[in-house]
Amino acid sequence: MQIAILSFFHYFTSMFKKRDNIFEVEEGKFLSPKFDKDGLITVITTDSKSGDVLMQGYMNDEALKKTIETKQAHYWSRSRNALWQKGETSGFVQKVLDFRIDDDQDSLWMSVDIGDGASCHVGYKSCFYRSIQLGTIKNTEEVELEFKEKKKKFDPEKVYKGQPNPTKL
Amino acid sequence: MQIAILSFFHYFTSMFKKRDNIFEVEEGKFLSPKFDKDGLITVITTDSKSGDVLMQGYMNDEALKKTIETKQAHYWSRSRNALWQKGETSGFVQKVLDFRIDDDQDSLWMSVDIGDGASCHVGYKSCFYRSIQLGTIKNTEEVELEFKEKKKKFDPEKVYKGQPNPTKL
Repeated sequence: MQIAILSFFHYFTSMFKKRDNIFEVEEGKFLSPKFDKDGLITVITTDSKSGDVLMQGYMNDEALKKTIETKQAHYWSRSRNALWQKGETSGFVQKVLDFRIDDDQDSLWMSVDIGDGASCHVGYKSCFYRSIQLGTIKNTEEVELEFKEKKKKFDPEKVYKGQPNPTKL
Repeated sequence: MQIAILSFFHYFTSMFKKRDNIFEVEEGKFLSPKFDKDGLITVITTDSKSGDVLMQGYMNDEALKKTIETKQAHYWSRSRNALWQKGETSGFVQKVLDFRIDDDQDSLWMSVDIGDGASCHVGYKSCFYRSIQLGTIKNTEEVELEFKEKKKKFDPEKVYKGQPNPTKL
């Protein structure tokens, strides 16, 4: 058991360079991701064709490794507390064409091909289907949203039948 | 003092609709942002011209309100623990052209105009200036990064003279 734990530890540490100086993290040529206290790193997913942001999710070290190896997006689902290959239920797989990391290596950006698919569990192509009205806020009034996608790409009741909604209040 | 605290509370709650049902959060026409336990929400910033992701940051309720009102990007700096108007030191202000929120309203996306400016404290235009090499990982080898931006847009030593580097190990 101890050997298994040590192997597991080695497996996830040897492929990531230790974060031991800021210059290397910012200007170096090796992946040194910074996971937060929950073991997660944020990931932004954009559509390679339109450039639109499709979704923002999280990866743990295993999801990051699987994404690099398979070139298909894997995430960590915070609502289900589980590794999650995008498309395993909906069929809407995300093929990773470019995968970037930011200056301090605590945020990821994937440019993906989703064909004619969608990325939002509500049924829209992008999770970001509403714009916030900009301008003066009257403190007695709520800020309005405008729908930018008019039509859903799929019916979530059919695609995710019987599964709990990941949105939490 | 009590009145001041109550007014402050009212100020930031009345403009955001209470998150009291999932349908309203996902399909409604009012802003009901979900701040995490530190009072923050993630924000993705893209270049309105190229569509490239420039940076990923955080807002607290005040940064969100100021961004909506002024149409200029404001963030919460986790490294300085302070409200931060982008460009206050560097001059590289971000004009917000479109500001979106996602399905469960716990992530924001701003499309911004930065003119011929830059958004990364290291000096590059985008914080995401390096791509991760995709494909099989050998567990004994570190994963390599490839620089996608070859030249810095500015010299951070001059622009941020005397200020601490926000990158933490």
